[in-house]
Amino acid sequence: MKSKKLENAEENTLKVSQDIRVRFNETDALGIVWHGYYLHYFEDGREAFGRKHGISYLDVKAHGYVTPIVKSSCEHKLPLRYGEIATIETTFINTPAAKMIFNYKIFNAEGDLVCLGETIQVFVDDNNDLSLTSPPFFKAWKDSNKLI
Amino acid sequence: MKSKKLENAEENTLKVSQDIRVRFNETDALGIVWHGYYLHYFEDGREAFGRKHGISYLDVKAHGYVTPIVKSSCEHKLPLRYGEIATIETTFINTPAAKMIFNYKIFNAEGDLVCLGETIQVFVDDNNDLSLTSPPFFKAWKDSNKLI
Amino acid sequence: MKSKKLENAEENTLKVSQDIRVRFNETDALGIVWHGYYLHYFEDGREAFGRKHGISYLDVKAHGYVTPIVKSSCEHKLPLRYGEIATIETTFINTPAAKMIFNYKIFNAEGDLVCLGETIQVFVDDNNDLSLTSPPFFKAWKDSNKLI
Amino acid sequence: MKSKKLENAEENTLKVSQDIRVRFNETDALGIVWHGYYLHYFEDGREAFGRKHGISYLDVKAHGYVTPIVKSSCEHKLPLRYGEIATIETTFINTPAAKMIFNYKIFNAEGDLVCLGETIQVFVDDNNDLSLTSPPFFKAWKDSNKLI
Repeated sequence: MKSKKLENAEENTLKVSQDIRVRFNETDALGIVWHGYYLHYFEDGREAFGRKHGISYLDVKAHGYVTPIVKSSCEHKLPLRYGEIATIETTFINTPAAKMIFNYKIFNAEGDLVCLGETIQVFVDDNNDLSLTSPPFFKAWKDSNKLI
Repeated sequence: MKSKKLENAEENTLKVSQDIRVRFNETDALGIVWHGYYLHYFEDGREAFGRKHGISYLDVKAHGYVTPIVKSSCEHKLPLRYGEIATIETTFINTPAAKMIFNYKIFNAEGDLVCLGETIQVFVDDNNDLSLTSPPFFKAWKDSNKLI
Repeated sequence: MKSKKLENAEENTLKVSQDIRVRFNETDALGIVWHGYYLHYFEDGREAFGRKHGISYLDVKAHGYVTPIVKSSCEHKLPLRYGEIATIETTFINTPAAKMIFNYKIFNAEGDLVCLGETIQVFVDDNNDLSLTSPPFFKAWKDSNKLI
Repeated sequence: MKSKKLENAEENTLKVSQDIRVRFNETDALGIVWHGYYLHYFEDGREAFGRKHGISYLDVKAHGYVTPIVKSSCEHKLPLRYGEIATIETTFINTPAAKMIFNYKIFNAEGDLVCLGETIQVFVDDNNDLSLTSPPFFKAWKDSNKLI
């Protein structure tokens, strides 16, 4: 039987990269992207991840759930300006809890870290009830992606 | 019998004024309010009008209708900057058609005209059908407000 | 001497198409893209046009000008929903005036017309003065693109 | 000499309350305020605090500084819907570091906690240099407000 440590070492890490082109309407009078728009970038990252790994908002909805955000956080290291193309890396953080946790890293074109962040989502079913354990479809999704 | 001209002169004009405080996140890298945010200001004006005259989105919804925007237009005369408090005047423009037309004028604190605009909304019922004639509640609302 | 009609027939029409993926945060409680977000889509179209034809906000800024929007309008024919990928066609409308006029058409994946619109921009130089005639760089740009 | 505990007990806590009327364009297809808009509400709270206590963005700018956000976080407890009027309490959290920390609590009309959050800002001067110690004007502001 494998030790917990070995099992973790074999666990798959799902990460998706996506380009972000800064829109003019995302800048503010400081000439940089207004800090609140990074949550829009996180959502772009989350949606790119979802499309690639079959766990998008629409996939989840087809199973009878929605996944509202219960927590978000963001650390800003460098600004982004209009004209820049950045890259967002969205990584799925596995947990036994009935949650979807994503970490985000945004890099500018020079490869410098611009922003770090995290969001946590929970599962709510068609009766508006919060799931206290992972819905079956989500367990199946984690298994098929070697997320222990 | 009254002439058309006299009738128009006796028709009521409904207009509501509302203050707008420019938010920092509404500015762009030109240091002024990004042009698209004026549609948010028009919505604020429309909502203030609706609350005052009992024809808000929630009042309309209670009658079984929603009123999606089918047309919007905007003319920008002067910029607005962070720190400014502007005033939006929202005027209901009466028409026999099954539409809600609002005109908007935004003035800065000095009373200069900053922006002119208009939106046109139609009525869609709970079956997602477009109303070709004014819904009864809307006719009643116009009568009670002396809009011929 | 060529007739006005022939001249127009030989004038180049510049048009750029760009995909738009509807973001979840662009929808509203009616389950469709909130009407004001179409101005964000127009900006995406304008920026795609600018990058392709060397007349982007950054190109214009390098020549010492900014191009604020003075007029915008929008007609909504059909809604867009989350999960849809639409196409925006941005066409440059030539005029002898010192303006940049763009027409927009947004189509859904089935090819149905979702939205029509237009924006008009003027030229403002580094001294904040409005240009009453086309700046030299803009005349040169029009010539090189066979826009009479 | 006073003990640390007594000193803290005498330290002033600055808190400002502000009403928030949920705008229709802030809702999403789940029928609730999209999570990212709470950062806009935090900014409203911060701006209300700034105007009341003379430490607004414009006051700070007059002293030669801007205060970009370096960190933000948000915990969502309950949703907000169109038509609701919420209250945001913005509390200044004192620290010896060269930072402005604000805590936020948003309550619905029934007094239930809807959202908790925090933002951290730093001081950047006109030469774009990050202040490693509190600028003099900020120390003066803290003194005058009995923030030790």
